[in-house]
Amino acid sequence: MIRVGIVGATGYGGRELVRLLAIHPEADLVHVTSTSAVGRRLDEELPAFRGLTDLEFEPFYADALAESCDVVFVGVPGTESMAIVSQLRAAGVRTIDIGPDFRLQDTKAFKQYYGKDHTAAALLDEAVYGIAPFNRARLKDAQLVAVPGCYPIGCLLPLKPLVEVAKIDVPIVVDSISGLSGAGKSLHERFHFSEMNENVWAYKIGVHQHTPEIEQELGHGAVVQFTPHVGPYTRGILSTITVRCEAPVDLAECYRRYEAEPFVRVLGEGALPELNDVRGSNFCDVGWVDDKRTGNLILISAIDNLVGGTAGMAIQCMNIMFSVEETTGLGLSGMSL
Amino acid sequence: MIRVGIVGATGYGGRELVRLLAIHPEADLVHVTSTSAVGRRLDEELPAFRGLTDLEFEPFYADALAESCDVVFVGVPGTESMAIVSQLRAAGVRTIDIGPDFRLQDTKAFKQYYGKDHTAAALLDEAVYGIAPFNRARLKDAQLVAVPGCYPIGCLLPLKPLVEVAKIDVPIVVDSISGLSGAGKSLHERFHFSEMNENVWAYKIGVHQHTPEIEQELGHGAVVQFTPHVGPYTRGILSTITVRCEAPVDLAECYRRYEAEPFVRVLGEGALPELNDVRGSNFCDVGWVDDKRTGNLILISAIDNLVGGTAGMAIQCMNIMFSVEETTGLGLSGMSL
Amino acid sequence: MIRVGIVGATGYGGRELVRLLAIHPEADLVHVTSTSAVGRRLDEELPAFRGLTDLEFEPFYADALAESCDVVFVGVPGTESMAIVSQLRAAGVRTIDIGPDFRLQDTKAFKQYYGKDHTAAALLDEAVYGIAPFNRARLKDAQLVAVPGCYPIGCLLPLKPLVEVAKIDVPIVVDSISGLSGAGKSLHERFHFSEMNENVWAYKIGVHQHTPEIEQELGHGAVVQFTPHVGPYTRGILSTITVRCEAPVDLAECYRRYEAEPFVRVLGEGALPELNDVRGSNFCDVGWVDDKRTGNLILISAIDNLVGGTAGMAIQCMNIMFSVEETTGLGLSGMSL
Amino acid sequence: MIRVGIVGATGYGGRELVRLLAIHPEADLVHVTSTSAVGRRLDEELPAFRGLTDLEFEPFYADALAESCDVVFVGVPGTESMAIVSQLRAAGVRTIDIGPDFRLQDTKAFKQYYGKDHTAAALLDEAVYGIAPFNRARLKDAQLVAVPGCYPIGCLLPLKPLVEVAKIDVPIVVDSISGLSGAGKSLHERFHFSEMNENVWAYKIGVHQHTPEIEQELGHGAVVQFTPHVGPYTRGILSTITVRCEAPVDLAECYRRYEAEPFVRVLGEGALPELNDVRGSNFCDVGWVDDKRTGNLILISAIDNLVGGTAGMAIQCMNIMFSVEETTGLGLSGMSL
Repeated sequence: MIRVGIVGATGYGGRELVRLLAIHPEADLVHVTSTSAVGRRLDEELPAFRGLTDLEFEPFYADALAESCDVVFVGVPGTESMAIVSQLRAAGVRTIDIGPDFRLQDTKAFKQYYGKDHTAAALLDEAVYGIAPFNRARLKDAQLVAVPGCYPIGCLLPLKPLVEVAKIDVPIVVDSISGLSGAGKSLHERFHFSEMNENVWAYKIGVHQHTPEIEQELGHGAVVQFTPHVGPYTRGILSTITVRCEAPVDLAECYRRYEAEPFVRVLGEGALPELNDVRGSNFCDVGWVDDKRTGNLILISAIDNLVGGTAGMAIQCMNIMFSVEETTGLGLSGMSL
Repeated sequence: MIRVGIVGATGYGGRELVRLLAIHPEADLVHVTSTSAVGRRLDEELPAFRGLTDLEFEPFYADALAESCDVVFVGVPGTESMAIVSQLRAAGVRTIDIGPDFRLQDTKAFKQYYGKDHTAAALLDEAVYGIAPFNRARLKDAQLVAVPGCYPIGCLLPLKPLVEVAKIDVPIVVDSISGLSGAGKSLHERFHFSEMNENVWAYKIGVHQHTPEIEQELGHGAVVQFTPHVGPYTRGILSTITVRCEAPVDLAECYRRYEAEPFVRVLGEGALPELNDVRGSNFCDVGWVDDKRTGNLILISAIDNLVGGTAGMAIQCMNIMFSVEETTGLGLSGMSL
Repeated sequence: MIRVGIVGATGYGGRELVRLLAIHPEADLVHVTSTSAVGRRLDEELPAFRGLTDLEFEPFYADALAESCDVVFVGVPGTESMAIVSQLRAAGVRTIDIGPDFRLQDTKAFKQYYGKDHTAAALLDEAVYGIAPFNRARLKDAQLVAVPGCYPIGCLLPLKPLVEVAKIDVPIVVDSISGLSGAGKSLHERFHFSEMNENVWAYKIGVHQHTPEIEQELGHGAVVQFTPHVGPYTRGILSTITVRCEAPVDLAECYRRYEAEPFVRVLGEGALPELNDVRGSNFCDVGWVDDKRTGNLILISAIDNLVGGTAGMAIQCMNIMFSVEETTGLGLSGMSL
Repeated sequence: MIRVGIVGATGYGGRELVRLLAIHPEADLVHVTSTSAVGRRLDEELPAFRGLTDLEFEPFYADALAESCDVVFVGVPGTESMAIVSQLRAAGVRTIDIGPDFRLQDTKAFKQYYGKDHTAAALLDEAVYGIAPFNRARLKDAQLVAVPGCYPIGCLLPLKPLVEVAKIDVPIVVDSISGLSGAGKSLHERFHFSEMNENVWAYKIGVHQHTPEIEQELGHGAVVQFTPHVGPYTRGILSTITVRCEAPVDLAECYRRYEAEPFVRVLGEGALPELNDVRGSNFCDVGWVDDKRTGNLILISAIDNLVGGTAGMAIQCMNIMFSVEETTGLGLSGMSL
């Protein structure tokens, strides 16, 4: 049994980890920490978990966690995990950070996009970018995993195989739409139900912090025009990616590498993913259209931002790290309803 | 391993069985039948299941199913399972019907509420009403289980302990609201997204077919004023039950019987259930208010109509029938998001 | 032209007044006041109004408003309008309060349900409860109008004609469900889109502040068991009202009084209202079922809480006060979509 | 008073015409026709209109309509208005078609995208493309108006001023997301509430029939990569348009032409439109970001597909045709909630 701790179990990513770990047959959630809820029961804070856990929130002590856990997930707001992860790593426990602090290798970009100096840059070397299909080998022995952002997962899975074979001559246009859960649980007038219901808007055009992350992981000089949107639903990201390649590309061939990939489903040309097929699951569905008239490829991907885009991907990384069959605990299909 | 077949896997109840069985460690879905999709793959019909199954739809042959399955779930429209269940029982296989045909013991009521004569009344004797907390003992050896309707589950769990101890002098008022998935997948102008979104309405007031089912199972001469509503969401039933007892009742005491019940969560006086805490799970949450000013008790229950109200309850019954730990495969919490 | 001012134009009720006054041919919105946004343009704060107004928020000076307005609407949080209305009335301007401060004649009940002493009790005498169909005559010369709460409007319109002719022997059960806009714009974790989407819950059972208001206006010793709910949509209240009369009542006869009522639509026995038919409009739709089996009457009403339940009703009162054709500016049908 | 008839008043566009005409002070809806509902009252078919109209559906006779109407709106499914409009024009009545049959000047493109031969090509010459800001002069005397498609309106308003001044060297990428009402009222499994709720998908990539319409009206050799999406809400289209110009363009300058335009609201650089600000209104909001890093312009537009995208635009055309002040009856702001 993998003994698991979670720092920050009440955030949306943390909650989803608790939910998924409850059906993981080889992992045991043994500690949850909190700054504000110490002493309260987890299921008092989150009644959805009543009947499934007796855990209480404890204060964060890195050494205590290191002693009783095989792995610790960290789910705290951006720029707050640098300090926590540093302590956990100093205490010697393997750490999976679902926040952004260890995703960007370039600390100047970190400063620019997250507004703070990076205070744990020494750890960036050991941080493995936790996208299972591309970094499986390095994940096996990883001591620190930086789980990708939800938008990057939905972009990298369809795009990376393409940029590796094709020359792309104008910026790749990525228009993604996310459910509100992607914004986390912080209160804001824009996230009020009445303001968000029936509403759609774009935000942070050209300056979203996931832009440099996507470009870093794509490599090959790819430039991405990333325009995120929010829509009136809770879970899921649909990404619509328009690419202009110098020469024709056979995408079916390109995606052959995913044949053995347990959670990437390549639907094929003309078969377009939708959120209902992935919601609640760890899958990323990919489809595309090759538009001969315009000379563009249009790729569509769909993920559940909380599962395939965060907690599910994190657990998949954990499975790899602990040599557990990779799909363990992740057998849920999309909800379809 | 319990070998499982499903007759009618594309309906909403059937889909949910497939989804839940995928994470059940002691059950194997081995056959799915269909009238219209024979020869097509299950995951072609329902892409949410891609990567999880290679099953193809087969025609319905009771003997073939009986031979290769330990249990068969039947998920077909009301009045259509009489014939199918008859054949399955004649072939000797244990059967769990998630439709209404074997719930009402009174064939006249069946005719009145479902509009057809009952053609398999001989089987009503062996049909066990599949509500685990009340019929556990009979379920162990059941050959035919009639899984309750979704509304009745949400009403019976809070009400049955009460009617057994209290004298109730006016009809019990049950106002339930259900998500649209309760209406199934048949097309109807009223279920069109644009017509249902932002909409709420009541229907079949006083004549809903679940009324006699609730009264039958409550017994004690209870009369129920049942008013179902539909609201603009997919999953979940919240039932608001107003009861007028002749003498004060201690509900906390009354619900003590649920202490060991794995899927009934008694929240207590003043603690009111909500759908997000049960969505995607097999739980029924129950809370109440004792209004001294009016002399009424108001009970609230929340279930996911597709899980705790259908497929989850059906699998719980299966677990009991096959002496598998009752909670197996049902460890999902409410989604909370 | 009626010159109109609004104190508190950024709240949800206030916004809706602005929206409706924009199409009112006999009213001119000339002043909006604010405590926090003084000097800012209304359409900067609320971009939905761009192109329709040049108004800027001004500080609140009762005398200035009294001088330049024929009527002032007050849309501030509960218990905050006592002071504002007092000043406006002292300054001599006719005032329509869409908040709760002048609805309850009983100051002890006010204290109990709103938690504060009433500081303007002297004005309660002149306050006319602003429900047009019942108080038309008194509204003509009203100097101070207290627009009813949204739930009370949806209950009183179907119930008042009934309590006047029938003897009702057990508490009337009112289960209402409201869209989130009824909660106003204050931020709260429960109102976060991700927490509210797909969710339904009941709240304040037996202690909601609209209970004494409904009973006051019903009179005849009526006792109401009021259970409010919130559902995952923005606008509209559906109220399901279960009544037990001592003797049979002819509701069609009872509702004949509404024949000339411009905004009460009596659909008839078995014809059940839905929110889509009233959303965006000033209508209240009423239908019912006479359940012979149980002896109960079940009445259903539907309103848009922001229009027929607040701003529309307030404008209807204004039209009556200023001898303008009562339906002026209120010609919108339900949106149906 | 303009006497108005509607052919096809029960479709979503037709319903919205009825709703808006009800508050139009200079228009009188005098006839509605139907094939299936002849003899039934309009408000029986559409209860949202009860209390506002006594109209009954009549059979379609072009001559009768021509005699009693000054203008007839036609709202029937694509390819069905060719015959109807031909008769109406032969009968001599001014006609506003909200369907697609008279939008494309190229009958070959019509055949390709709509699958039928054009049977009224002779009328294409007199058909004026009904986008008020660009064709005001021609609309004054128009006998036949083809109201643009909803997507084209949301694309043309932000794009046309740009293509007239800038050289654009790669296909313009238009990713639009529409509410479900855009799909009309036809029943389809995909439009079932349970299948569409919480769902997003792209469709008809590269082959949507609005593509040639947008390119025709843009002119200047513009090529558009149009990818439409559907999201889980009823009304509104948000279009995200990525353009790559050969030289820098001053968009603020470019949009100066809209200063006097009553229903185009230019929000400015960095100010991004959202659906809540336009829902229920005739406005099109436009904002943009000039991304120096990538060299792209990203334009965002928001409209209500049923109002600014169909019925509101149609009424604006009517106002121009009949020399009524152009904004008459269209004074509604966005609903904001």
